[in-house]
Amino acid sequence: MTVAAAATAHVVVAPDSFKGSLSASEVARAVAAGVRDAAPDARITCLAMADGGEGTLDALLTAWRTEVRTTATVDAIGRPTTARWATSPDGRVGVVELAEASGLPRVSDEPLRPLHAHTRGTGEVAAAVLDAGVEEVLVCLGGSASTDGGAGILAGLGARLLDADGLEVPDGGAGLAHVASLDLSALHPRAREVRWRLAVDVTNPLVGEHGAAAVFSPQKGARPGEVAFLDEALTRWAGLLERETGVRVHELPGAGAAGGVPAALAAVLGAGLEHGAALVAEAIGLSAALADATLVLTGEGSFDSQSVRGKVADGVARLAAASPARPPVVVLAGRVLLPAAQTRAAGIAGAFSIAPGPIELDALLPRTAERLTDLAASVTGLVLAARAAPLVPPAEA
Amino acid sequence: MTVAAAATAHVVVAPDSFKGSLSASEVARAVAAGVRDAAPDARITCLAMADGGEGTLDALLTAWRTEVRTTATVDAIGRPTTARWATSPDGRVGVVELAEASGLPRVSDEPLRPLHAHTRGTGEVAAAVLDAGVEEVLVCLGGSASTDGGAGILAGLGARLLDADGLEVPDGGAGLAHVASLDLSALHPRAREVRWRLAVDVTNPLVGEHGAAAVFSPQKGARPGEVAFLDEALTRWAGLLERETGVRVHELPGAGAAGGVPAALAAVLGAGLEHGAALVAEAIGLSAALADATLVLTGEGSFDSQSVRGKVADGVARLAAASPARPPVVVLAGRVLLPAAQTRAAGIAGAFSIAPGPIELDALLPRTAERLTDLAASVTGLVLAARAAPLVPPAEA
Repeated sequence: MTVAAAATAHVVVAPDSFKGSLSASEVARAVAAGVRDAAPDARITCLAMADGGEGTLDALLTAWRTEVRTTATVDAIGRPTTARWATSPDGRVGVVELAEASGLPRVSDEPLRPLHAHTRGTGEVAAAVLDAGVEEVLVCLGGSASTDGGAGILAGLGARLLDADGLEVPDGGAGLAHVASLDLSALHPRAREVRWRLAVDVTNPLVGEHGAAAVFSPQKGARPGEVAFLDEALTRWAGLLERETGVRVHELPGAGAAGGVPAALAAVLGAGLEHGAALVAEAIGLSAALADATLVLTGEGSFDSQSVRGKVADGVARLAAASPARPPVVVLAGRVLLPAAQTRAAGIAGAFSIAPGPIELDALLPRTAERLTDLAASVTGLVLAARAAPLVPPAEA
Repeated sequence: MTVAAAATAHVVVAPDSFKGSLSASEVARAVAAGVRDAAPDARITCLAMADGGEGTLDALLTAWRTEVRTTATVDAIGRPTTARWATSPDGRVGVVELAEASGLPRVSDEPLRPLHAHTRGTGEVAAAVLDAGVEEVLVCLGGSASTDGGAGILAGLGARLLDADGLEVPDGGAGLAHVASLDLSALHPRAREVRWRLAVDVTNPLVGEHGAAAVFSPQKGARPGEVAFLDEALTRWAGLLERETGVRVHELPGAGAAGGVPAALAAVLGAGLEHGAALVAEAIGLSAALADATLVLTGEGSFDSQSVRGKVADGVARLAAASPARPPVVVLAGRVLLPAAQTRAAGIAGAFSIAPGPIELDALLPRTAERLTDLAASVTGLVLAARAAPLVPPAEA
């Protein structure tokens, strides 16, 4: 029985990227090489993961093996740009990554414009995805330059935000300060037919001291007075959304992600907010792969207290715990900063660093792939040895 | 079945010391704390190990819980000193550690005397051990200052080495150049009644290009001309031993250890050369502990190619492979320098560094115990999770 188990070992490799070093696919490849070294007969399933933020589109493109699509649109400050998106092999699911059109890195060549940056480009990409005939749209948040409460996305999908005089307000958080009504008559006809799923990795509400403006807008260039202005604008926007749709988003956990994007999409389009890594895991078929897994290897550059709160390792561990095979989940990381007890409490059997001993970061970085291979071989060898060992009754005391 | 196995987990902790950082007992304590964190119900057996060289006496004193004995004698250059030794709880086995009386560190306050340093003190300690009534003497080699072919130990036990005029030759390798006969009439009466077992961790022969003089005497201060002189002296000594005893030790593997000590003891006293770590493992009862072990944790400061050739990790792995429980053996180390494939080939399931990521040696050293505890918890948690996971048949292809 134990021998049979060893012979049919199935190792699932589902890592995040090592930021600044290797992409998730590169990590998966290095880890798989180590698994193969230690267990030449094992089945290996590689599924590059992401946490629903930047990099998620790439992970899904790799998993789905579908072609990248592009749409001409505008960036967060209105300049022409091109954004990528994708659909699942069956065409049922479309993926929009906010950072593609509306990301902060795209506009880092200009001074930051925290009051004026917007998400209209992402809305235009979403319209293209709807035109492709999908039934479900995944929106990957994270990396935004704006604090516009998702108004830009609605605008990109055809909605009109009007002031008290019936004139369109400008894009960006500043415009929300004057918005008086919402005209949805020109909204994309399919926008309310599809299911919207938002990949979110924070739980911040839209407004208040933990809201989008207070917590995140300073990173986007907002000074203290602007932060307060944006918080008031978002509050006005949430009030309008509640009047127009009957949906109250002020306190919705996660509505503060990406400058408040979930607020508009939840109220107007009925979008659901989901655990980003879990959403990605579902989209790439991780659950099915885990059903008979012997071992799950995940990883990321730095494994710390954030990792077990909504990041990839957490998402993988949750799915593994729900799998009938209950495979042990092991994290391979550049740095392991979480104590073993907290790691175990998060459903992760162990976390190990690729550092082979005292070593400087500059010396370790170029060896990341090689060390991942070696560490994966050690962990795989250990798990198979542990499973293969006969279960001996304890000796008489 | 798997649940029962997890509930009765038995973890054996059998590490070497981390040189320059923690003793083997301290390492074992830190590792056991981690095992307890991860598996509060597990039985834990701590057996501080050693490789038969320096530190072995301490390991045996700890395991046996017997009192340390001391004998007044001389160091490697003839100055008064005190050396420790021990006997097993039943009084049957005595332990002599060569480095106690005749070690290089003891004489490091004086210029090195490669031709004159000797092992007479160790012989005097051995005589005291014989007086205690033991049936078996373990001699732990390693750390010697001399290249005297073991002549000093014989002299300490009462033998006389005479030149062509019937005068005693001086102690040390230089005296061997003039030795013409061996007078055993005053040898300790019990010397040939007991079993002598030598803990050796090298395979070098007594003489020649891989011999005691060529390979080891330069570390003890010998210049090139002196190396050649010592090799000739050892060759003369081996010839005399063969004539007097009929035993040829020139090519005996391991006879080159500790300046050639095994040569005299094998020829005159019938001493056996043994794998140092295996000898220690036997003496501390490791085999019995492994019989129902779920996991074996060993460790050392630096895990490298030497580690799997006669050092502690190798000795532990050999015994574990021979155990009916076939428990996986895991090495916890400061540095892991051996690739996973070579580690596995040596019967060790995995080797992991205590480094939590890029870190400097000076920062890691004071955290050794803390990191050992955390790493041991991770490894234990992983092994128990791997054993507890149900054995799921593979999914249909």
